[in-house]
Amino acid sequence: MKKVSVLGATGSIGRQTIKVLKGLSGYKIISLSAHSNYKLLIDYVREFKPKTVCVTNEKAYEKAKSKIKDAKVLPPWQLFRLAEDKNTDIIIAGSSGSSALPVILAALKNGKTVAVANKEPIVMAGDILKKAAEKHGGKIIPVDSEHSAIFHCLATSKTKPEKIYITSSGGAILKRGARKITPAFILKHPIWKMGKKITVDSSTGVNKGFEVIEAHHLFGIDFSKIGVILHPEAIVHGIVEYADGSSVAYLSRPDMKIPIKYALTYPQKLPLKNFLDYKNLNLTFKKFPEEKYACFCLAVKCGKKGGVLPSSFCGANETTVKFFLKGKIPFSKIPKIIEKTVSKTPSVKYTIENCLKIEKWAMDFAGRIS
Amino acid sequence: MKKVSVLGATGSIGRQTIKVLKGLSGYKIISLSAHSNYKLLIDYVREFKPKTVCVTNEKAYEKAKSKIKDAKVLPPWQLFRLAEDKNTDIIIAGSSGSSALPVILAALKNGKTVAVANKEPIVMAGDILKKAAEKHGGKIIPVDSEHSAIFHCLATSKTKPEKIYITSSGGAILKRGARKITPAFILKHPIWKMGKKITVDSSTGVNKGFEVIEAHHLFGIDFSKIGVILHPEAIVHGIVEYADGSSVAYLSRPDMKIPIKYALTYPQKLPLKNFLDYKNLNLTFKKFPEEKYACFCLAVKCGKKGGVLPSSFCGANETTVKFFLKGKIPFSKIPKIIEKTVSKTPSVKYTIENCLKIEKWAMDFAGRIS
Repeated sequence: MKKVSVLGATGSIGRQTIKVLKGLSGYKIISLSAHSNYKLLIDYVREFKPKTVCVTNEKAYEKAKSKIKDAKVLPPWQLFRLAEDKNTDIIIAGSSGSSALPVILAALKNGKTVAVANKEPIVMAGDILKKAAEKHGGKIIPVDSEHSAIFHCLATSKTKPEKIYITSSGGAILKRGARKITPAFILKHPIWKMGKKITVDSSTGVNKGFEVIEAHHLFGIDFSKIGVILHPEAIVHGIVEYADGSSVAYLSRPDMKIPIKYALTYPQKLPLKNFLDYKNLNLTFKKFPEEKYACFCLAVKCGKKGGVLPSSFCGANETTVKFFLKGKIPFSKIPKIIEKTVSKTPSVKYTIENCLKIEKWAMDFAGRIS
Repeated sequence: MKKVSVLGATGSIGRQTIKVLKGLSGYKIISLSAHSNYKLLIDYVREFKPKTVCVTNEKAYEKAKSKIKDAKVLPPWQLFRLAEDKNTDIIIAGSSGSSALPVILAALKNGKTVAVANKEPIVMAGDILKKAAEKHGGKIIPVDSEHSAIFHCLATSKTKPEKIYITSSGGAILKRGARKITPAFILKHPIWKMGKKITVDSSTGVNKGFEVIEAHHLFGIDFSKIGVILHPEAIVHGIVEYADGSSVAYLSRPDMKIPIKYALTYPQKLPLKNFLDYKNLNLTFKKFPEEKYACFCLAVKCGKKGGVLPSSFCGANETTVKFFLKGKIPFSKIPKIIEKTVSKTPSVKYTIENCLKIEKWAMDFAGRIS
């Protein structure tokens, strides 16, 4: 029996993880975390009977504490305890932003397998997390579809790849024409159904920029060998190219349950039966139009410079997306605010504590200049 | 230094193998075989200084024997000696039809690695060859582009695939319209530049049928799990599909040097730099129109029945293709003659000797009824 902890259980990835786990024998949910949706958490506790839950929003924690009797309810500041639980085999880190970062680090330091679904932890502290994993026997398994794809493809050959490609469906922006970019327009993302923030991130280019940085850290591949391809059908998620000119591509329908299940059951691939129809399939690949995504190059530049700069980027992005969704700033201001924030980032040592501090600093700074 | 023996060195695969070996350090050609093109063989002897050569056409053997002084020249009936040479590490079996079958078997029984480029040996005696390889530690590496593709893709997961797909560009037949099918028309194959026989085999469906049988033997996969997809661009050569619905596809330009080099350097993939252009690529997949390829289903049916039937098919096909190329029979008679021959095949035990005997019987029988 594999014992699973789901962080961010009530979010988009968390809910899909729970769906996958429902259909999977040999797995038991032993702990859960949620942010504010304590009502859904209560349902989960009733259904899956975890031993421990943690609620990371204080108000929601108080409510959950008074209503949940069958599980230990931890306050926000004790989230890391889920990572230290000796009984846990796999942690699915699906909570938004960088909130899971300290927990992921703690889990890796305890030699655990962590399936990382959101990008910020790797973008902000990829080097630190990888070192911790290597030192303590922990394992990072990517859940993001592009990285799950590359992760699978890289297993095909002992030879180092010449290049890896991640694909972009183009997001809502691709065919916008002269339409004004409003939150409502952007949230109608053509392919993937995702959370609001990541949908905006897809439109600004932040998401694809983060994926490049993530690929660099996860697979130890130089930025010069990571390419992005425009692939509107979103069927091919990643490609690994070898020196002889051949490539291996990973294909699937845009269904997050596939990479989630793979992360849980790796190296096995168990049935989901969401097959492609090879009797009728068209796939197109084009140059990724970087110029349409103002934040893409900015993000990659921060990733290349490294240190705490990506944390600054993440913080500024967090604030600007929030402001944009609330209608406080126009779409076009997002890159400008991020760029200014990043350029003013204080120079400090690259540690987990400083990554989180700088992220917080950037959130505030970006808020002030918005 | 890896010591290589190239069988069928003057044929289409053989010449490309020699080209690849020229650019590869750490490899030495120690023996060669050729059928009738002794002049090219003499050039090769001069250039690569193999210890031994074998000429499988008697007249050519006499000529070669009188002219080659720097290498031992073996007569046709001693081809198997190349397989038994203790110094040989890898044998590339590129000679046409079933001629290399006894040599491949001998090589596998000597625990050697054999890169098999032509289909007949596996189609006729796949089970026997695989058993010999398993028993004596020999290894079969496929060179055919589709099987090289599947071979590579299968390395990605420990889970058994749900299905494998090989692709077909459709050959000359696909867009023939009302044109008469003449040898000249067929030999203008739109994608791959290959030998004459295999080009005709592509148009009759024999080639794709053989590939299905070959895949069944090489990868131990049931016929029901092997699919053929029409893919006119001939960029994706093979696809492995898993139970979750995800797939891994192998892509390359239609260049036989890529799978040849992979077979020689496996598991490494060394530079050829014949890269695809992912900034401008369209890939289409459609239902394979079995009905257009009269011999496809017939071949697969023989493969499923097994025993010596595929050998009978190979023999009948050999004769009918020869007759068609000489203008002795029309294209439409090829499947009819093969079908009749196969239906009259004597029932004998499945041994290497009988495979070769039945093939010979079918060649003669098909000739008589043509």
